[in-house]
Amino acid sequence: MSSNKEEQELYLYDPSLLLKLDFYRSPAKFNPPITCVAPGEPWLKVRPLKSGDYRRGFLQILSQLTSIGEISEVQFLNRFAEMRAKGDYYVTVIEDLRKNKIIGSATLVIERKFIHSCGNRAHLEDVVVDDTYRGKQLGKLIVVTVTCLAEYLGCYKMSLECKDKLIAFYRSIGYVDEPGNSNSMTLRYDKQANL
Amino acid sequence: MSSNKEEQELYLYDPSLLLKLDFYRSPAKFNPPITCVAPGEPWLKVRPLKSGDYRRGFLQILSQLTSIGEISEVQFLNRFAEMRAKGDYYVTVIEDLRKNKIIGSATLVIERKFIHSCGNRAHLEDVVVDDTYRGKQLGKLIVVTVTCLAEYLGCYKMSLECKDKLIAFYRSIGYVDEPGNSNSMTLRYDKQANL
Repeated sequence: MSSNKEEQELYLYDPSLLLKLDFYRSPAKFNPPITCVAPGEPWLKVRPLKSGDYRRGFLQILSQLTSIGEISEVQFLNRFAEMRAKGDYYVTVIEDLRKNKIIGSATLVIERKFIHSCGNRAHLEDVVVDDTYRGKQLGKLIVVTVTCLAEYLGCYKMSLECKDKLIAFYRSIGYVDEPGNSNSMTLRYDKQANL
Repeated sequence: MSSNKEEQELYLYDPSLLLKLDFYRSPAKFNPPITCVAPGEPWLKVRPLKSGDYRRGFLQILSQLTSIGEISEVQFLNRFAEMRAKGDYYVTVIEDLRKNKIIGSATLVIERKFIHSCGNRAHLEDVVVDDTYRGKQLGKLIVVTVTCLAEYLGCYKMSLECKDKLIAFYRSIGYVDEPGNSNSMTLRYDKQANL
């Protein structure tokens, strides 16, 4: 990809938001201390998803999480534009600058409500970090980044659907399985329809 | 409210969508059989939220669910317009036409994703039916309505955060607490910030 092409790339959301987050408000402990601005290695970068990330392996990273299907670059760009226009999608990635590759991602989605004084609540979705980058606290880093971002954006809460084996991890970051109210239930439809 | 004013009201989404739902695809059983088009009483109406519902007690119904705070009619209308512009909010209500009052509500929110071939998934939020209308299957009716709507709109799954005491209810409608993956975890922020 030429540097000229890179300059034409769009961010999904304003990258300066990531400079404003207060990691020290989070109960998460990092050892050694890292933040989204200083992620521990000079060749790691935490930033919003960019329109060129199709070519940096963004979908390959997501495929470590679940089924992706066949997605062309045009389909990716259409979905990117749709999310950007709606304005409530904060897909945040970690890039390995040495390889020009996306190695982790987490999505914050903001939902507008009437309850809580027309409040906004946050959903944490699609968290994944490349297996080969273990031991660098990057899972915690990307989750705390979007968790702090949701607070900065004024959400009153953030929640996620969580596998049993990840409960301890999310507890260490400040998430709670509230007694009597911590079940996630799902209905999967047979096939796609009309949207 | 004059009939002239009623004519000026906006629907949050196209009400004809509710005519197209196939209740018989749902595993939910109704006895006697009712649907969103024929909700069992001639004075009950299932429909999208309308801009005039502030004056029909919509917020009072939500207050049976959780804290609402002080919301002026202007704030309500601003949020309504915001949801309508974003296009992915399907707040669906039950009105008692005798009293011109909203007596139940459930919200379907559609989230756009990259995974599952740029699929859409659905969130079920803020389900409430007035206590004094028990025994009319209205809780099941409003949940099945938005569940069928999400399928019609092409979502690949719908999920919700569920209290322990409601697990059996949602199972009867086809929702599953998937083994090893049915936890909901939440982080509540101290105060609102900057959005």
